[in-house]
Amino acid sequence: MRYELYYWPTIQGRGEYVRLALEEAGADYIDVARSGNGVGKMMKMMEAAKGAPPFAPPFLKAGKLVIGQTANILLYLGPRVGLAPKAEAPRLWVHQLQLTIADLVDEIHDTHHPLGTSLYYEDQRPAAKRRAREFWHARVPKFLGYFERLIGASGGPYLNGRRVCYADLSLFQIIEGLRYAFPNHMKRFERKVPNLIALHDKVALRPNIKAYLASERRIPFNDDGIFRHYPVLDR
Amino acid sequence: MRYELYYWPTIQGRGEYVRLALEEAGADYIDVARSGNGVGKMMKMMEAAKGAPPFAPPFLKAGKLVIGQTANILLYLGPRVGLAPKAEAPRLWVHQLQLTIADLVDEIHDTHHPLGTSLYYEDQRPAAKRRAREFWHARVPKFLGYFERLIGASGGPYLNGRRVCYADLSLFQIIEGLRYAFPNHMKRFERKVPNLIALHDKVALRPNIKAYLASERRIPFNDDGIFRHYPVLDR
Repeated sequence: MRYELYYWPTIQGRGEYVRLALEEAGADYIDVARSGNGVGKMMKMMEAAKGAPPFAPPFLKAGKLVIGQTANILLYLGPRVGLAPKAEAPRLWVHQLQLTIADLVDEIHDTHHPLGTSLYYEDQRPAAKRRAREFWHARVPKFLGYFERLIGASGGPYLNGRRVCYADLSLFQIIEGLRYAFPNHMKRFERKVPNLIALHDKVALRPNIKAYLASERRIPFNDDGIFRHYPVLDR
Repeated sequence: MRYELYYWPTIQGRGEYVRLALEEAGADYIDVARSGNGVGKMMKMMEAAKGAPPFAPPFLKAGKLVIGQTANILLYLGPRVGLAPKAEAPRLWVHQLQLTIADLVDEIHDTHHPLGTSLYYEDQRPAAKRRAREFWHARVPKFLGYFERLIGASGGPYLNGRRVCYADLSLFQIIEGLRYAFPNHMKRFERKVPNLIALHDKVALRPNIKAYLASERRIPFNDDGIFRHYPVLDR
């Protein structure tokens, strides 16, 4: 099966969690919006009056099925590409972890857009400074501390022990993104989450991920995505 | 099977989407934290070092399984209690709708807490005013317009036509909550989403829901939950 991924072509964004899973699995896929009239095609699918139009990218076309919401895509893909268990209980557990990561991603986004996504960052800088401070004070320790404990309890190197799952790939992306957006904060914080950093390093060395990161398929971080490097937010 | 729901005992919050599903289904459940030492029991389960500790309430205990994240709980419960199809494609579709509702719930919460959950509302009032304005200007029309179109396309009265699913119950709660928090805005906005209002009214009349809403099990809205009535945000 050739999967079709639909996501904005110039950012990693939420699509990246799906890209990482497809790449790690060596799945046959096309990143539709990155070629030809792909963005137009993507917009058209969201405007469809019938069927099951997704609310927003990313979405995945798998045969006739169109699946929206990042975590839902991974729920579908995971067991099919060997990145999640097939049995219900552990499959729901991995999904639960991914939904918690999705909550963290929302909060990361809001550090630069606390007053709303339709306003420019430049018009909400003071609010962004307060939100970013609170994010590092209260939220990062809570979220990353949770994942750090889980890796410790499983024995590592991954969330569930020795077998990698798609939520591990997403945590890799979280660490990469936080390093890009908040290098000063991360320099101080990383020593508090050694298990997470070890997980990150382990994922980075997986052959398919390594090849992906070195390829042109990996869009570089930039200041249009979820993770943005605004030095004033990183003091 | 007697389900055990774990959620904060004094607010509707995110637990309410699960409560509505359990009530509609007439399921056998206990709302653990609302009696005896329930809150202490709930906190202990989150601190568990082994197994699969949830990040935050709500979570559901079903036999030996402990399931966290609101949408994940409903994904599990839905087909078991007749509130979602059993087949994979329509089951993922209902879950996708629920995840989109969860995104809306996050944005509703952020209207009164744009700078972070660990700060008081009173310390972020100017930011809350801007966020609430942007929410009504850009976000409510986008989210509710999407669900309005889906009901229209299905023929109604529910999201998927004549059969109710748990996402319909959640949309009922969204309308109830927005009416509580933003009565002025809703007075003007409701005429734009007649399908959604009809869905709300239909859910409210379902016998199990009606009985639940009239019972003491339904916690009244208050200003500690997701939906808060701050008149200054409703101008």
